[in-house]
Amino acid sequence: MERIGFIGLGIMGKPMALHLLKAGYPLAVLEKNKAAAELVEAGAHAYATNSAVAENSDIVITMLPDSPDVQEVVFGADGILQGIKPGSLFIDMSTIAPAVAKNLYEVFQQQAVGALDAPVSGGQVGAEAATLSIMVGGSDKAFARALPLFQCMGKNIVHIGEAGAGQTTKACNQMIVGMTIQAVAEAFTLAKKAGVNLEKMREVLLGGFAQSRILDLHGKRIIDQNFKPGFKIKLHRKDMNIILQAGKEYGVPLYGSALVAAHMDALIAQGNGELDHSALALLFEKMADI
Amino acid sequence: MERIGFIGLGIMGKPMALHLLKAGYPLAVLEKNKAAAELVEAGAHAYATNSAVAENSDIVITMLPDSPDVQEVVFGADGILQGIKPGSLFIDMSTIAPAVAKNLYEVFQQQAVGALDAPVSGGQVGAEAATLSIMVGGSDKAFARALPLFQCMGKNIVHIGEAGAGQTTKACNQMIVGMTIQAVAEAFTLAKKAGVNLEKMREVLLGGFAQSRILDLHGKRIIDQNFKPGFKIKLHRKDMNIILQAGKEYGVPLYGSALVAAHMDALIAQGNGELDHSALALLFEKMADI
Repeated sequence: MERIGFIGLGIMGKPMALHLLKAGYPLAVLEKNKAAAELVEAGAHAYATNSAVAENSDIVITMLPDSPDVQEVVFGADGILQGIKPGSLFIDMSTIAPAVAKNLYEVFQQQAVGALDAPVSGGQVGAEAATLSIMVGGSDKAFARALPLFQCMGKNIVHIGEAGAGQTTKACNQMIVGMTIQAVAEAFTLAKKAGVNLEKMREVLLGGFAQSRILDLHGKRIIDQNFKPGFKIKLHRKDMNIILQAGKEYGVPLYGSALVAAHMDALIAQGNGELDHSALALLFEKMADI
Repeated sequence: MERIGFIGLGIMGKPMALHLLKAGYPLAVLEKNKAAAELVEAGAHAYATNSAVAENSDIVITMLPDSPDVQEVVFGADGILQGIKPGSLFIDMSTIAPAVAKNLYEVFQQQAVGALDAPVSGGQVGAEAATLSIMVGGSDKAFARALPLFQCMGKNIVHIGEAGAGQTTKACNQMIVGMTIQAVAEAFTLAKKAGVNLEKMREVLLGGFAQSRILDLHGKRIIDQNFKPGFKIKLHRKDMNIILQAGKEYGVPLYGSALVAAHMDALIAQGNGELDHSALALLFEKMADI
């Protein structure tokens, strides 16, 4: 079996790495990481540097917060690029800018290392239950090599296209989710101010053209005023940044996305960045004096 | 059985009236209407004025394009108000401003006439198949009286609350639909410009948090560039007007809705008002030089 190096053992990465370990893959982790001890106890090998993790792996997976974090572990001192061997495969499962993903692909290609961008959706629950959606960009060959690993971590696994296509798809996912939350929050605020029973409204709207998973799940959260994350506003705001950067790069004016980002900024400034992204409704309620 | 007067025999009203006729209700229509001949042939009685239709009915239903049309047939010369008798029921199934619906309720109440606002969603297909969603505002008593009629025309029938609650719910439906189309159009335009396979993207996004009926149906339309209506942009724009008016009335700043309305205005100015509302994507593609 291929030896896996897994860098980024946070609330998403740790359960994902554990699934690979349970499936029998030899696993290398970074010993500095707090979660590493638990994985070492379960059978993983710990190394002192990203370079050493890469040197002792056939496939290196990263699962980190943002583009600069991925660039740091790849290009930084004792980074992946220094240790990784020709014929290896690099898979970034973080959510980062499509342009950065494409650049990483080119850099690794020069070292005869394959690369995939494979961001996920489904959150902590999906990571723990191994039911993540995985959106993959890169070559057919690299995708085929990585597929058995993806199948240990997710369910809805789609090879979208070439390098960067996975990240672009993830960006589109986050755009649609953000704007749909805005739509539901705006509508529910109007209805609440007008004295309409929100539970009944949600019921009838779910039966028609306005139906969405957001209306279902976040509509319920808004009614119950339950904003315990879930997916934190400040993390979604980070993704909005990636989206707006991609819009700028491709020359697509992203009006709705920019609006959602501005509303998230206001919530973060009010000290609500740790709340679930459905708390966008709080801003509307505040503006409407509810 | 109660005698029904049906005013507004357009693409929605005609099939709705036919369902009532088929269920055995005596039906009165306005003889001026082009569709009336077909209904008379099927057994309806034709009268020369709205007043006469109301005079010869126990329940009067209106299904008209906009608030002023409903106000005209109620308050105008030989209008419903002149003919309707105490103890009757007035049901407006048009999509109009919640404030107008509330005013109509009060006016009819002074005449000892019950009133319901009962806008629908589901479009021409839903009207023909008798599968409309019907969102009802008004008293329990009036709702109970109207329910057998609604069951001839729709499936998802919910009594939301007091007078105006049906129209507010419909406004919220149209807001969410409009903003979700904007979300999908914006995302698909970015992905298209980035060279991503839209069919694969739609597939993976439908499996996650971005799922919506709009992503499913209008996502497909955008991919196929099939903008044959469906629901025309100019009609949705009319509804956005009702929404923005309600936002102003209740003091709720409807950022996303205002944005969607502005984009629809641009499309209408470009001569695209007759296209399906999913054609919002055309404006984004134009701006992105696709």
